[in-house]
Amino acid sequence: MYNNIKYYLDKVAEIFEQETFVAEPHELYEPIDYTLRLGGKRIRPTLLLAANGLFGGKEEEVRNAALGIETFHNFTLLHDDLMDRSPLRRGQPTVYCKWDDNTAILSGDTMFALAWRYFLRQPSPRLQQILQCFNETAIEVCEGQQKDMNFETMALDEVSLDDYMDMIRQKTAVLLAGALKVGALYAGAPEKEVEKLWAFGEHMGLAFQLQDDLLDGYGDTAVFGKKTGQDIRDNKKSFLPLKALMLCSGEQREALTKLFAAKDNMDEEEKVRRVLELYNAIGLRAAVEDAIAQEFRTATKHLDDIQADEALKTPLREMLETLNGRKK
Amino acid sequence: MYNNIKYYLDKVAEIFEQETFVAEPHELYEPIDYTLRLGGKRIRPTLLLAANGLFGGKEEEVRNAALGIETFHNFTLLHDDLMDRSPLRRGQPTVYCKWDDNTAILSGDTMFALAWRYFLRQPSPRLQQILQCFNETAIEVCEGQQKDMNFETMALDEVSLDDYMDMIRQKTAVLLAGALKVGALYAGAPEKEVEKLWAFGEHMGLAFQLQDDLLDGYGDTAVFGKKTGQDIRDNKKSFLPLKALMLCSGEQREALTKLFAAKDNMDEEEKVRRVLELYNAIGLRAAVEDAIAQEFRTATKHLDDIQADEALKTPLREMLETLNGRKK
Repeated sequence: MYNNIKYYLDKVAEIFEQETFVAEPHELYEPIDYTLRLGGKRIRPTLLLAANGLFGGKEEEVRNAALGIETFHNFTLLHDDLMDRSPLRRGQPTVYCKWDDNTAILSGDTMFALAWRYFLRQPSPRLQQILQCFNETAIEVCEGQQKDMNFETMALDEVSLDDYMDMIRQKTAVLLAGALKVGALYAGAPEKEVEKLWAFGEHMGLAFQLQDDLLDGYGDTAVFGKKTGQDIRDNKKSFLPLKALMLCSGEQREALTKLFAAKDNMDEEEKVRRVLELYNAIGLRAAVEDAIAQEFRTATKHLDDIQADEALKTPLREMLETLNGRKK
Repeated sequence: MYNNIKYYLDKVAEIFEQETFVAEPHELYEPIDYTLRLGGKRIRPTLLLAANGLFGGKEEEVRNAALGIETFHNFTLLHDDLMDRSPLRRGQPTVYCKWDDNTAILSGDTMFALAWRYFLRQPSPRLQQILQCFNETAIEVCEGQQKDMNFETMALDEVSLDDYMDMIRQKTAVLLAGALKVGALYAGAPEKEVEKLWAFGEHMGLAFQLQDDLLDGYGDTAVFGKKTGQDIRDNKKSFLPLKALMLCSGEQREALTKLFAAKDNMDEEEKVRRVLELYNAIGLRAAVEDAIAQEFRTATKHLDDIQADEALKTPLREMLETLNGRKK
């Protein structure tokens, strides 16, 4: 019952179904309810519950933290979508589009405070440590988003692969690690095991983001749900062009940097075609797949090392496999 | 030494001078440092320290909470200025003007998390209660801001005086009350005294905001630092026109409602003149001064009722007097 990921996914779905996010003034809470009802994969609360279960924690003690971590995650998406001017999220209009900028700002701020309300409902002997873990994670997510925005105005060859990995670690990986750590802390897990779980989460998060980058270039549009090459059209300094730069000859390097600086002076589809042609010429896809596999292996190694009931590790292994095999 | 407000004001100034807000990525932290260095009256951390002193708390135990409450307050100002498109704060360009909208959004979000970092540094046997007090206050501030924005699109006679008082209670008064409560909780004050201190803070906050409203209509521009009548030009449903509606004849009521609905179809200075003329005809200034005096009296009564060393109440009495006599 507890040794499969579906159990926890269903549990999270149930928790969200039971919760109401509507309150007054409704102008403030309707966008919050809308955002949290859009669903999504809800990976973070699922990881939190599974990590708690791994160390024999009580499910009712992490119900609020599960709600809190997902509310926080959705707050960051809400503000990111506004900053990036992304019109769609999960196939639906984003809050700043459906309402307006001010609604997106204030409803987002309120969601951050609501996330805290959930976290603060549950007493724990380790409350200060748990809340510090959540908050330091939140600060890293903000720093990661700033670095991501900084990359937008930089040339491709000004961004190093290390800078990029550090950015996605902060923006994406740390919150998965934080969710796992919070779940384990509530269960009273030993510090040493908590640290291994954190490392597992970080590498899973890196793998997850690198896969996202790969799918942009090589995903099946019909399955992935997004048009191939959007990162190329947006001159996005993702893992693909940054890794490509390292595999290129000097001439190719120059060509790629120029292509990622191009603004409106080239046909978009022609640009995507030329970039993918260069990627293929240097065998980029295999190199990226190797990097992803490496992150998954490292994550697995950390999970293997954890001193806990092997059967209870199964949900986390299944989550890793699901992410590994994902096509969207 | 501890029985005057200047002691606490100097202490707060010292705490902020000793603290650094600069970190990497600097694009994220420079606007935060800029905002927190602009100063202002720093009433909230001063109240927090004074409330802690009132119940014999240790100053070093509330240093972080003082930083936290002011960081939170400045986060709300930063986002409010963006939402209200206010170009100046304390005579300096606001963050969205000096940098851009996205910087204001993300730096603000980060300030909220930094406020939590300060609060989470200090252990306390009442940590959960202290943090809940801070967070529920934060949620009320957001709700108050939403109500304030709602009023913008409403006609003058659609907003009741009760709705307005409830809005300023949430947007302004609750944070003063919250600062006092947090300071007292750290000092281990009895629940009953904490509640009286909260009530003292709420009424002080209401008086403070009503005074702000009065100064807009009747302040000395040279002293107040803002041009008289700006709320009238902005059709702002402040205490003045809402109280005026209650004192008006039917004919005046209609005229005032129309004046506060006017958009660009009337000379601004003519509009200010006509509104002030109507205010004077019904004796509004005295009525508002009465309402303010009533809030100050209620605040004083709650302070009188608190069971604590009378000498240690002096700083709070001085703060109340300073706010009562303020001309700006």
